Amino acid sequence: MPTIETLTWTGGAAGCLKLIDQTLLPVELREIDCRTVETVWEAIKMLRVRGAPAIGIAAAYGVCVGLQTVGPNPAARTLVERLDEVVHYLASSRPTAVNLFWALDRMKAKAESLRTASPPEILAALFEEAKAIHEEDRTICRAIGKFGQTLTKDGGSYLTHCNAGGLATADYGTALAVFFAAAEAGKKIHVFADETRPLLQGARLTAWELQQREIDVTLICDSMASLVMRQGKVDAVFVGADRIAANGDTANKIGTYGVAVAAKAHNIPFYVAAPLSTFDLTLENGHLIPIEERDPAEVSHGFGKQTAPDGVRIYNPAFDVTPSSLIAGIVTEKGIISPVNRETVALLVPVPFG
Amino acid sequence: MPTIETLTWTGGAAGCLKLIDQTLLPVELREIDCRTVETVWEAIKMLRVRGAPAIGIAAAYGVCVGLQTVGPNPAARTLVERLDEVVHYLASSRPTAVNLFWALDRMKAKAESLRTASPPEILAALFEEAKAIHEEDRTICRAIGKFGQTLTKDGGSYLTHCNAGGLATADYGTALAVFFAAAEAGKKIHVFADETRPLLQGARLTAWELQQREIDVTLICDSMASLVMRQGKVDAVFVGADRIAANGDTANKIGTYGVAVAAKAHNIPFYVAAPLSTFDLTLENGHLIPIEERDPAEVSHGFGKQTAPDGVRIYNPAFDVTPSSLIAGIVTEKGIISPVNRETVALLVPVPFG
Repeated sequence: MPTIETLTWTGGAAGCLKLIDQTLLPVELREIDCRTVETVWEAIKMLRVRGAPAIGIAAAYGVCVGLQTVGPNPAARTLVERLDEVVHYLASSRPTAVNLFWALDRMKAKAESLRTASPPEILAALFEEAKAIHEEDRTICRAIGKFGQTLTKDGGSYLTHCNAGGLATADYGTALAVFFAAAEAGKKIHVFADETRPLLQGARLTAWELQQREIDVTLICDSMASLVMRQGKVDAVFVGADRIAANGDTANKIGTYGVAVAAKAHNIPFYVAAPLSTFDLTLENGHLIPIEERDPAEVSHGFGKQTAPDGVRIYNPAFDVTPSSLIAGIVTEKGIISPVNRETVALLVPVPFG
Repeated sequence: MPTIETLTWTGGAAGCLKLIDQTLLPVELREIDCRTVETVWEAIKMLRVRGAPAIGIAAAYGVCVGLQTVGPNPAARTLVERLDEVVHYLASSRPTAVNLFWALDRMKAKAESLRTASPPEILAALFEEAKAIHEEDRTICRAIGKFGQTLTKDGGSYLTHCNAGGLATADYGTALAVFFAAAEAGKKIHVFADETRPLLQGARLTAWELQQREIDVTLICDSMASLVMRQGKVDAVFVGADRIAANGDTANKIGTYGVAVAAKAHNIPFYVAAPLSTFDLTLENGHLIPIEERDPAEVSHGFGKQTAPDGVRIYNPAFDVTPSSLIAGIVTEKGIISPVNRETVALLVPVPFG
C-alpha cells in the first residue's frame, strides 16, 4: 500500500517542512514548502494540514522553522524570546485540538530542561524533539491500529466520520488505522465514509485514503448515516478525537455527536481512536472543552458556488462533544479504555509532563 | 409578506405553465415557461419544481400542456390515447412523491367521469380540474398552518429539514406553513434550517423563504442538528412528507429519519406536516415505500466542483422513512393526528377516490 506522507522535513535543521495541501485533495496532490512560521500558522489555520496529531507535528516543526530567523548561534536571550514568540503565535492558530498545545508545551519543556546548554545545543535538541514527536506518532498510530482491529471482524462493515486517517497523522491514522490494520490482518471489511460537511474531509480525504489503500469504501452524506444503521449495514463506528476530557467526553469534528446518538439508538458500538496526547486531564468533562466556531462562508460558499441567501445567519461550530456515556471504548496506543469513565481513563492515561 | 408564486398558469386552456426554476435559487429568481409535456417532465425530474404538493400541481398542469398537441377539438379516441400517454409519461419522472400519482389519477378519473361528454368539454374540465388542484392546495396549506401553529409558542425555537415551504406547494407550504401561521398569529419564533445535503434545499430554499417572510432563521449543516438539540435550542421539529403509509410511517427527504432519532434522544417532539393527499393507504407500512436513488454526482460534484475522488462508490438515496413511533403528530388540513398509528390515521384520512 502506498504511504501517504502528510508531513516531511527536508534538509537538516536549516531545512524546511513540506505539507500536503489537503484543501486541494482529492483533485490535486500538491505539497507546500513551509519556510516561515507564518506559512505554518496559515497552513494550520486554513486546514491545509489538519487532524489533531498532524497539527501537533506541524506545530513542533513550526517551532524549528520559526527559530531559523535567529540564525545558528543566537544570544541565549534572543533564543528564549523568539521561542516564546513562536510558541505563542502558533498556539493562536486553532483553539480546539489539544495536540497543538501539547506539542508546543513539549517543545518549550525541552528548551527549559536545557537552560545550561549553549544556544546551538538547544536548537539541535529542539529539532530532535520535533523529529521525535513525528516518529513517535507513527509508532502510536500502528499501536492504535493493532488494538483497534481486534474490534473488527472479517466481513464487517463500519462507519467513520471526518478524517482520522494518515492525512491527520504522520502516516497511518487513528480511526482509519483500525481499518488499515484490519485489512493487513487479512480481514475483508467495508467502510461507510460520512462526507462531513462543511469542509468535506470525509469525501475529500477519507474516501481518497481508503481508496488508495484498496479498502472497500462507500461515500454517503452525513444525513444518511442513520439510514444505513437502520438498514443493518453498520457493525461499529470508529472516529478520531480532537480533545478528550478526564471523564472520557470527546470533542471531535462537528457531526460526531449525532453519529453517536444514532449509533446508540441502533445498538451499534461507537468507538473513539486517539493517542494519549489527545487527553486533556485538566478538563473535568466535555462542557469545558472550547469549541471553535468557523467562518460562515464555509457553509454558504463551500463548493465554489453560493448555496445560501445573502445575509442569512449561519451557525458553524467546527466540533461537538460526545459524552462518554455514548462511547463503547477509546482505542489508544496503550490499549482500549472500556467502559469509558473517569476511573478507567485515569488507569491508562498518565498525568502529562510539565 | 411577499407571496412566492411557485407555479402559475398564464392564458386560458391554450396557455402555459410557469415555474420558478428552484435549482437557481437563492442566487437567481428565474421562471421557466413549460409549453411541452417534456419540459414539465424535465422540470420535475431535475427538481426545478420539487416538493410533493408542487409536483402534484405541476403534473396536473403538465397533463393540460401535454393535451395541447391534439388541438382544441380532437377525435375522442385521439384524446383518450394522448391522455394515457401523457399520464404514463409524467408518472415516470419521480418515483417517491405520491402526490404525483395522486394528481395524475385525479386527472384521469375526471376524464373517465366524463366519457359521454365531447372532447372539448373534457379538455375544459381537465383544465378546471388542474386549476382546482392548484387552488385547493392553497386552502390546504393555510389549514395546515392554522392547526400546526397551535403546537408553537411565542419565543419558541424550531428545526426543519429540507424545504416544505411555499416553494414545495402552491404558496404557503406545509412544515413552513406552521411557522408562517405562527408569525401571523403574532408569535416571535426562531427556526433552524438544516441545509439538507446533497441538494441543499434547506440552505437554498428554506433559508431564503424564511428570510423573505422575515422569520428569524439560522442555517446549519445537517450534522449540527443533534448539537443544537443538545444545547436546548430546539422546542420541536416540523418537517414535510413525500409519502405516508397507512400506519403513519413517513417518507421524507433523506436525513429526516436521523433528525427524528436525534429528537427522540433529546425528548423533543417531532411533527410531520402534510396534506391528506400525501397518505398512501395502499401501503401497510413504510417498508413498502419505494425509495428513489439519485445520481452519485449530486454528492461528488454537487456545486460545480469535484469533492470526492474519481471512481469512489457513492450511495445516494433521496428519501428515508421515519417510523411512526418517532412521530409525535401529523398535522393535516383536517386536524392533527396524534398519537400516530394505523387507527388514528384511519380516523382522519379518507379512502381515496377511484
